[in-house]
Amino acid sequence: MAKPNIPDIVVSRLPLYLQTLNHLLREGEEVVSSDELSEKVGIPAVQIRKDLSFFGGFGVKGKGYDIIHLIDNLRSILNLNQIWPMVIVGVGNLGQALIRYQGFARQGFEIVLALDINPNIIGTEIAGIVVQDVETMDTALRSSDIRIALLTVPANAAQSTADALVAHGIKAILNYAPIILKLPEGVRVANIDPVLKLEHLTYYLS
Amino acid sequence: MAKPNIPDIVVSRLPLYLQTLNHLLREGEEVVSSDELSEKVGIPAVQIRKDLSFFGGFGVKGKGYDIIHLIDNLRSILNLNQIWPMVIVGVGNLGQALIRYQGFARQGFEIVLALDINPNIIGTEIAGIVVQDVETMDTALRSSDIRIALLTVPANAAQSTADALVAHGIKAILNYAPIILKLPEGVRVANIDPVLKLEHLTYYLS
Repeated sequence: MAKPNIPDIVVSRLPLYLQTLNHLLREGEEVVSSDELSEKVGIPAVQIRKDLSFFGGFGVKGKGYDIIHLIDNLRSILNLNQIWPMVIVGVGNLGQALIRYQGFARQGFEIVLALDINPNIIGTEIAGIVVQDVETMDTALRSSDIRIALLTVPANAAQSTADALVAHGIKAILNYAPIILKLPEGVRVANIDPVLKLEHLTYYLS
Repeated sequence: MAKPNIPDIVVSRLPLYLQTLNHLLREGEEVVSSDELSEKVGIPAVQIRKDLSFFGGFGVKGKGYDIIHLIDNLRSILNLNQIWPMVIVGVGNLGQALIRYQGFARQGFEIVLALDINPNIIGTEIAGIVVQDVETMDTALRSSDIRIALLTVPANAAQSTADALVAHGIKAILNYAPIILKLPEGVRVANIDPVLKLEHLTYYLS
């Protein structure tokens, strides 16, 4: 599917719609109105209809959305009709938890390579993955089709590690370190920082 | 400080500004212009100035922002001049990693209570916290001033656990389960779901 120039904020909501549609499908639903979807996902119906209209709409007036059809389209738009192999760099407590997390594989994301700098961790096996020396990144990534990295190193190592990953062909980084990475054009970063989320919540707790 | 009615999207960016200002302070900076801050944080300078103007501005034209002064103000606005005790429910791989994560305490968030349903986990000690039976939630929360919960239970237990937390006085939930929680007015939820972030990234990988 050729992609029009869609605002990133619209793209960011599509995975949320997809998650909710998958949930409805598992509950045996076949059709959903934008009002019902709105109620489930917590986003106004008019926003949902507008977001989906960027890609052609998919709904039938007065009937709603065919769930399977919309799931198929969203999966295609988000490039989810394939398995995405991933590398994780930093196999501390969080890294180990992520390697063991089964939610990635269920959605087509598979950690196939784990790298660390710590000699006590290198060579250990976690959920079937043997942790490699981060020094082998060059060889390991060159012979792979990995384009996504999970970055779970300490904050002071995050930028240099991200630079190395990008130098070896990584195009998207899910960054768990509490810093803002500076990366070249064409490399996408998403950040997961629970402290920032908590500080947003405490604004409302007075 | 009395709070005007600020759009939530503005509030969501304040922790990011605070993080970057703390970083600049550690590097020895004393003043920062909105252009420099913009470059660091990846948000347009005009947006930063507009966001801060909701709270009175803080900047001096042609000089920029006094970093310590702005940090003090943001911390006050976000209610960060106190320690926030937190409960975590669900002490699996991720829960354990979060209990061990030192980034919370550094920013004034402290996990003081850990609850789980698994008899093999109840009674174990992780980073100084002895895991309690989730059945004791009532007693444990009633005698505490905990208002924030980290929710790291499996998806199928997340809604009922969240309902129980709210019934026992929790006002803010950081939800790691890959579902959308339905909670009463006045309870705030933030979600952390790495799969949604990855699906956003893959849109750009064709």
